[in-house]
Parts: sequence; C-alpha cells; structure tokens
Amino acid sequence: MVDFTVFKGSKGGKIIKSQTKRELGHDEVLIKVTHSGVCGTDEHFKEADMVLGHEGAGIIEEVGSSVKAYSKGDSVGWGYQQTACGHCKQCITGRETLCPERTMYGTANFDTGSFAHYSIWKAAFIFAIPASIPREFAAPLMCGGATVFNALHSFGARSTDRIGVIGVGGLGHLAIQFAAKMGNEVVVFSTTDSKKAEALKLGATEFVATKGVQELKVSGKIDHLLVTTSQQPDWKQILPIMAPGGTIYPLSVSSEDLKMPYMPIIASELTVQGSLVAARQVQRDMLAFAALHQIRPIIETFPLTAEGIEESMKKLEEGKMRYRAVLVAE
Amino acid sequence: MVDFTVFKGSKGGKIIKSQTKRELGHDEVLIKVTHSGVCGTDEHFKEADMVLGHEGAGIIEEVGSSVKAYSKGDSVGWGYQQTACGHCKQCITGRETLCPERTMYGTANFDTGSFAHYSIWKAAFIFAIPASIPREFAAPLMCGGATVFNALHSFGARSTDRIGVIGVGGLGHLAIQFAAKMGNEVVVFSTTDSKKAEALKLGATEFVATKGVQELKVSGKIDHLLVTTSQQPDWKQILPIMAPGGTIYPLSVSSEDLKMPYMPIIASELTVQGSLVAARQVQRDMLAFAALHQIRPIIETFPLTAEGIEESMKKLEEGKMRYRAVLVAE
Repeated sequence: MVDFTVFKGSKGGKIIKSQTKRELGHDEVLIKVTHSGVCGTDEHFKEADMVLGHEGAGIIEEVGSSVKAYSKGDSVGWGYQQTACGHCKQCITGRETLCPERTMYGTANFDTGSFAHYSIWKAAFIFAIPASIPREFAAPLMCGGATVFNALHSFGARSTDRIGVIGVGGLGHLAIQFAAKMGNEVVVFSTTDSKKAEALKLGATEFVATKGVQELKVSGKIDHLLVTTSQQPDWKQILPIMAPGGTIYPLSVSSEDLKMPYMPIIASELTVQGSLVAARQVQRDMLAFAALHQIRPIIETFPLTAEGIEESMKKLEEGKMRYRAVLVAE
Repeated sequence: MVDFTVFKGSKGGKIIKSQTKRELGHDEVLIKVTHSGVCGTDEHFKEADMVLGHEGAGIIEEVGSSVKAYSKGDSVGWGYQQTACGHCKQCITGRETLCPERTMYGTANFDTGSFAHYSIWKAAFIFAIPASIPREFAAPLMCGGATVFNALHSFGARSTDRIGVIGVGGLGHLAIQFAAKMGNEVVVFSTTDSKKAEALKLGATEFVATKGVQELKVSGKIDHLLVTTSQQPDWKQILPIMAPGGTIYPLSVSSEDLKMPYMPIIASELTVQGSLVAARQVQRDMLAFAALHQIRPIIETFPLTAEGIEESMKKLEEGKMRYRAVLVAE
C-alpha cells in the first residue's frame, strides 16, 4: 500500500491538498514527481474532484511485479492518457489516443496525476526521458509538445510546406521550434509585435501582427496552420491565406462551435483536421526529435504546492505566462 | 468562324436562347452536344449572363490545328473546368482543379457550355467516353459522378472502410454505386424510407431513415461520410456516428457557414475534408471504373431546349428528380 499527497480541483476552483492511498498494480509504476507542467486544460478541470496535472516528469520509485521496461531511478515522463484497451482497431494501429475505452485526463476522475508528490501510472503509458533533456524542460513536452508535434507529424505535413502558427504561448512557442527544426518555413501570427523578436529567435521565418488588420498579408500561402490560441480566430480572415489543399488544425479546447465560411473549404479543398495529443510512438518520436535538436520550452517555475499551483494557473489565465509554467517539487 | 445556339441564365432565372460566334482556337475542339446533365450548381447560376451546363457529352465536329488527341466523330465528355495555367504547383502535381488561374463554371462567364447545340472546349480538358457508356449516362458522370468519386478516391478512403452517404439524389445515388463497387460497406441516410428499396438495389448495405429521429443508430461507425444533400445536416446528430479518425466530406454548395460542434472534432481526430470535382486523371479513373463496373446514373430526360431546361430545373428544385436530369438534343 502506498500513500501520498495529491492536489485536486474543487467547486469554486480552489486547489485542495489530499491523500491518495492504494495498492501499486502489477503493471504500474510509482513515480516521485519532480516537475509538472501546467496546461490550459488543467484550468478546464479546476472545479473537478480529481487529481490535476498531466505533464509529469519524475523518478521511478517502485515498479509493479510484471514491469520489465523500467527500474527504480529511471527518469520518466507521462502525459494525457493512462490506459487504452489494447485490442481495438485504434490500439493495434498506433492510434490508441482514440481508443473508445481510453482513460484520458478529464474523462476519468483520476486519483493520481502530476500535481502531486507521487504518481501511479500504467508502465505502458510512461516515457523514458532522454538524458540530454532536463526534467523541468521535459515536463511541458508531455502534453504541450506532444500536441503540436502530433499535428506537424501525423497528418502529412512535409518539410517543404509552409507552416503557420497562430499564437505564441505554451503551445505556439513549441510549434515554432519543432516546425523550424523540421526544415519548414514558419509564419507566426500574434496579436501585436510584442513577441516578434522571440518568435524569430525560436525559428519563425515571418511574423504577422493581426490586431486591427482587416486582411492578413503573408509572403506565401499557408499549407498547414496550427491554431494554438485559446479563442478561435476570425476564420473569414484565415481562409484566404490558406494554400489550395491546405490543412487547418484547431488545437485549443473551446466550448464554442466551430463556425467557418463553407464554400472556401470546398473550393480550395481545405482540410479541417482534429488533432489530439500524441499516440505513444509519436510521443517517443517527439522526445527523440526534441533531444536531437535541443528543443526546449521556455519556462517559469513555481513551487509544487497548492499556492504554487494556484499562482501559476492565475498567471496562465491572465495570459501573462512566458511561456509554460513548471511546478517544481520542494 | 463558328456560330451556334446556346442557352444562358438571366435576371429572374428565365433561360434565354442566344448565339455564340467565335473562332475555334488551335488548341480547342468544337463538339456537337448530344446530351447534358443538369446539376444543382446550374440552379445557382441561372440568373447569371453565362452559358449554362457543365455535364456535357457529344461528338467532336472539328478540331483546332494543334489538337492531336481527338478527331472528328469521337465521343467525348466535359465538365466543370475549362482551363488551368499548366505550370503552378497544383497543375504539375495533378491537382489542377485548384489552380489559381483555372476557369471553372461560374468563375468565368463562359460563352460556351453544355446547354447548347455546340460547345467549344480546350482539348486538354475533355474526356474520351468509354464505348460501353452511352452518352446519356456519361453526361451526369462529368460533374455528379466526378464529385462523389473524387471524395471516395482522393483522400485515403479504402475498401475496408465503412462509407456513409447522406442523401439519395443526383450525387448520392452515384456515390452508393461507386462505394459499393469499390467493395465498401455503404450506410445510406435519407429522410424517409421512400428510397430504401432503391438504395439497397444500388448497393447500400444499410439504410437509416432520419426524420423525427433523435439519435441516429448505425450497426457500426462511419469512416468516411459523403454529405450530398442540398442542406447541411444536423451535425450534432452526425458527429457521434463517426468512427475515431473518420472523415466528413461536405459536397453540396451552400451559402451558409459550416457550424459544427468543436470538441468532438478534436477528441476523435475527425477530418472535415473539402472536396471539389475531380482533377483530370481522377476523372479518367472514374470513367474507366464506371465502365468496368457498369455504373450508370438513373436519369430522366428532357429536350435540350429553353423549355426543357426550365422544366428540368424546376423539377430538380422541387426535389422530385429521380435522380439526374439529362437534356437530349433534338
């Protein structure tokens, strides 16, 4: 039986300290959490009675009896998904994030997560962190990095395509780096010029400030557009800058309907592509690619305490984070 | 100089008889129109001062000086597109329907079309009609057939996927046949049971009447869904029956926005895929496939006169066509 401190959401959004007590399953690992990223999706569940956090990084403390792939002391990360059935069409074709029986963050009221001192996770759903990536930088890759990498990697984008990234935030600042290292031209859209220098430093080849602009001007049309802002953009402005046959990836969580001009989608054979976090092999590819190219999130650190979580979530909500919060165990 | 009778749209929607007089270009052919399909898109341009009709079938009467591929007497068809630049990215990669300089039906005020006694068309944009397809059946394949075939053929659908077809009309009744002959399970959605027997005869493996139904029930989820109705469906009903990673093809012309629940698109990695008429090689593949499998539209014939055109368009507008009108030259 293990027993450890966790942090949960609660009605009203206050972060509650709690204890989880359970047996370690034969196929599970117990991880001492050293770092956790803070994602916009955590905000959406801050009123839920569940352990928050899904960008975990830590050190394995104990492994279940049937676990062979990991040992005590290994540096590992974990993300959005804890289990999948293992035998449905999606599971056996490398798309287990779409398994109908998956337990994903928010779909199950987890008693374990990365806003915690320890976490218990299925061994099949954790990832070895490459030695060259310090854990504070690995944590935000587990969901934020996975989300943008999946869009760039899994739906046919190629190095010669022109990639657009709307928003320079937790997701956007990683998307720029991944796309630049994949060899792409990267056109970044942001409200004002305030993040222009940083975007160019991260690898953007072109920067467009959108505030007060009627018609967006780009040097060439966009083949793949990653929308990373928390609000949907003005699609009437966006569709005319898409290349024929281009693809739009709406990546943010939004409670509003998707509402888009209809005929331009058909006339230019555009694709609107739903894209979730990465399946496991994509996650492994992402980590290897990030290690090879030294892709690192830009982070602000907070203590891994109820107060630290609340402070980081408040800053994120106010849009002031530069660019991803990482909670550090004390 | 050639001089021939054509039928144009006009303010108020009356069909006007007119004459076109022009030189036959060196790269053009003069075709005696024997048949023309009538498409929903013709309705959209019936107030435009242009020659209507873009599902042509006929016999070559004369070829321009540089035309080598066709000779007088050849049986040919033509569709939506007359020209493309020939050197842009789309043109040189087999996607010339997306050429920015293309002249497509409605984008150019054609003085030639298939609602006419003769038509002049670029030789590079006409198609030999296989000998086994009578021209009255070939005509509706030029746009209607091309549109559904392109969706089934060009975006990754496979024979083992479950295909959905919403609407049994000019497009839908062809989509059912093509998908069935490709080896797919075909689930057909229609308002009432009135077209059930016909849908099953055309190759549907399952039929769902949607009128008054809250929740759609299917024996298995849909991998690729072709929406062929003139109105957008209730997307809230549709998304739950899509398989994870499934693709939706909105094929109809609509002046309304696309308005769809947003989160299910992401959570199931759905694709909304704009799909236009077929590029030329796809059109050739479609004609060969239709010939091999004896795929034929179900048609109603009308005389190729101003009155015949008006009568067919009226019937189409009232939703009474079973299933595609073909105008026959007198």
